[in-house]
Amino acid sequence: MRHPRPAEFKESDLHAALAEPELDSVRFLNEIMRRHPDAISFAPGAPHPTHLDRLDLHAHVETFRAHLRERHGHSATAANRLLMEYGPSRGIINDLVAGALRLDHGIDIPDEAVVVTVGAQEAMLLALRALFASADDLLAVVNPCYVGMTGAAHLLDIPLVPVADNDSDAGGMPDLDGLERACRAARAQGRRVRALYVAPDFSNPSGTLLDLATRRRLLRLADQEDFYLLEDLAYGFTADSAHELPTLKRIDESGRVLCVGTFAKICLPGARVGFVVADQPVRGADGAGRILADHLAALKGMVTVNTPPLSQAVIGGMLLTAGGSMAAIGRERAVTYRRNLALLLEALDQHVPAAPGPSPAVTWNRPAGGFFVRCRLPVRADAALLEECAAAHGVLWTPMSAFYVGPGGDREIRLSCSYLDADEIREGAARLARFFRTLSGPDPTPLPG
Amino acid sequence: MRHPRPAEFKESDLHAALAEPELDSVRFLNEIMRRHPDAISFAPGAPHPTHLDRLDLHAHVETFRAHLRERHGHSATAANRLLMEYGPSRGIINDLVAGALRLDHGIDIPDEAVVVTVGAQEAMLLALRALFASADDLLAVVNPCYVGMTGAAHLLDIPLVPVADNDSDAGGMPDLDGLERACRAARAQGRRVRALYVAPDFSNPSGTLLDLATRRRLLRLADQEDFYLLEDLAYGFTADSAHELPTLKRIDESGRVLCVGTFAKICLPGARVGFVVADQPVRGADGAGRILADHLAALKGMVTVNTPPLSQAVIGGMLLTAGGSMAAIGRERAVTYRRNLALLLEALDQHVPAAPGPSPAVTWNRPAGGFFVRCRLPVRADAALLEECAAAHGVLWTPMSAFYVGPGGDREIRLSCSYLDADEIREGAARLARFFRTLSGPDPTPLPG
Repeated sequence: MRHPRPAEFKESDLHAALAEPELDSVRFLNEIMRRHPDAISFAPGAPHPTHLDRLDLHAHVETFRAHLRERHGHSATAANRLLMEYGPSRGIINDLVAGALRLDHGIDIPDEAVVVTVGAQEAMLLALRALFASADDLLAVVNPCYVGMTGAAHLLDIPLVPVADNDSDAGGMPDLDGLERACRAARAQGRRVRALYVAPDFSNPSGTLLDLATRRRLLRLADQEDFYLLEDLAYGFTADSAHELPTLKRIDESGRVLCVGTFAKICLPGARVGFVVADQPVRGADGAGRILADHLAALKGMVTVNTPPLSQAVIGGMLLTAGGSMAAIGRERAVTYRRNLALLLEALDQHVPAAPGPSPAVTWNRPAGGFFVRCRLPVRADAALLEECAAAHGVLWTPMSAFYVGPGGDREIRLSCSYLDADEIREGAARLARFFRTLSGPDPTPLPG
Repeated sequence: MRHPRPAEFKESDLHAALAEPELDSVRFLNEIMRRHPDAISFAPGAPHPTHLDRLDLHAHVETFRAHLRERHGHSATAANRLLMEYGPSRGIINDLVAGALRLDHGIDIPDEAVVVTVGAQEAMLLALRALFASADDLLAVVNPCYVGMTGAAHLLDIPLVPVADNDSDAGGMPDLDGLERACRAARAQGRRVRALYVAPDFSNPSGTLLDLATRRRLLRLADQEDFYLLEDLAYGFTADSAHELPTLKRIDESGRVLCVGTFAKICLPGARVGFVVADQPVRGADGAGRILADHLAALKGMVTVNTPPLSQAVIGGMLLTAGGSMAAIGRERAVTYRRNLALLLEALDQHVPAAPGPSPAVTWNRPAGGFFVRCRLPVRADAALLEECAAAHGVLWTPMSAFYVGPGGDREIRLSCSYLDADEIREGAARLARFFRTLSGPDPTPLPG
């Protein structure tokens, strides 16, 4: 019997991750941005490009080469080959990354507990893959959630449990009572919440900063309910000194925390270098003593083999130039982001008038750091509204619903200020204000909690 | 109730991909290589390092920058930012890769049918993830099989169906009758063979070259049994003109073939640049016309976001310097590999005497290209034997069993000649011959088929 020829695939015959609505959102957003190239865009969460214009990639690579020769005793040929050949899955700048974590965060882990990854994205994928062994293992996420994490979970068929991020003008806070209930509900069904993904410092998209008490309670809850914490360090560097808090990993006393981090925001996205820290011991059937990072490195062999050594050399050179500190680079760059965030909030205050009615038409939170402001509209903030806004007002934003696991965010938008210049932010906020004035609708729905 | 603290993980509580025996093999092999740094190693399948010593990475990046300015009209700042910022998941050298495939292989696909990946490894992972939607979708592999493909399948919980590679001194050939039976057996169980992974040109580890008739029959079988072909192009560049055959993709008339390729062997492994070609149309529920590469790019967003643009720039620069041809670079480098392979076969002929008994104690195949020779021993070729051989004879090889899906290869080893110099190959073969003379055992078990 001859089967019919496949003139085409059916989308429904491909993996379910490809049917996730956030993919359509991303496509649509890109399409709208393409159609409105002159609009001021509060959409991209990318680092500001002027930081990149001054970067000399070659110089950083040469700094790293010199380090290999002087510090590690490599010959010029050996150093050259290290940059060009296959390398260890775990990475070649693990000592520098571990050193930076020690210096900047007081996270004291051995070099081999670090796996250098192709961005934080691969770090997330590896951490999920190692920990999630069964279809009964659930991933809890603070909702709304960074789409990179939900994407990685979809790719691995990992079921998600949303934990509400109680939103208020003063800032969000994850609903830990809800998380505790979710753990118990899962257990009652013979399943388990295996891990919670959380970005404690100015999360994407909510801007939520977990206070110290919540951090400590989260660690106790992880112990109590036997789950792990996947801590994302991405935006901590933007904190001013009044908002610097210890990472979960720093105050973790029982090995509950795996950290994922990225050099994309602090150094440059194009290097595609991130990392995962996993120093937990693992007992093998053979009695061999390994740590979780050994297993993550083995999984990395099945995903990308190793992170491009040239990329690692760029990051290594930048760290060496900055005295081994990520924070030293981050502090300089954070000036731009704190200025941008303050400008955006100030311009919104200035241009968006208090509503005439009993309650404001448009409200927003006031994060103390990060790249994002969470904004509530009185109407559905979907692709159609975005298109209308772009065409009529020349300003772009991200509908928040794409970040929600399950329903939610229909009347929220995310404003990102990281990629814009000061005058674009001022003008953009004025355009947003004009757009907001055209909206009419009921009072904003109270958010969960 | 307070759950016990996780002093450590149990390996059995991690994902099953981490329990695959090939991971232990790799660890053990690395350990033996570390313990015997002065042994001559026929283990690594890496490209010869002298090709890398002459490479000027910076110059290639600058060539690509110039191309962006001159060909694509980018300003210097725009070109710089393209190398440093986030970029499209699909890649930034797709035109150059598609051009090389057209020029070198007569594969005529649009630029957007290429997704540039972090090595062929990510290409394999993406292709598998897109195609394998259900636990009833089986991946057939020619057995023994490249561990990168079986690793990616394990990571995604994809069940494997081994297809015997009928081995003979004259060369291997996959058992297509067996594959046809496997397709029917799967169908009878309500499952399906969704794809076959095959490297038609001097496969790793078997060195098998599929003849043209087998290529055509494989395409017909894919049509007849409704499966896809994941064609790995890795070693085709090593063929001399007498052994250059059209790729499966080239002679595919019904959209059955996805190609994965790598620049690791031809250019440099450290760039970590590979690609997947998937020009098949996909019909969406919304009626939108996309191609499979669009979906692979979307999945890439969940794995690595995008391939480091700096790495792509290095490869782009190398392609531009070579007149847009991968084959032009490959032809020059293939001289080394063909010389090495001929040397190894010649030295084995010279040093390994015809056995005194009625049948030879040690036999090997004679591939016409690629990096590998498949060698049959009269005894079990396990880690213990390797350790013994390294200690007593100062020569290393790879036990073949790690490449087998299911049992097999217990008395086979893989000899790789790509990384060695001529004198190392001669001396290594002499050492191997001394080692072979110490072996005694029954005649080699006939291989499957």
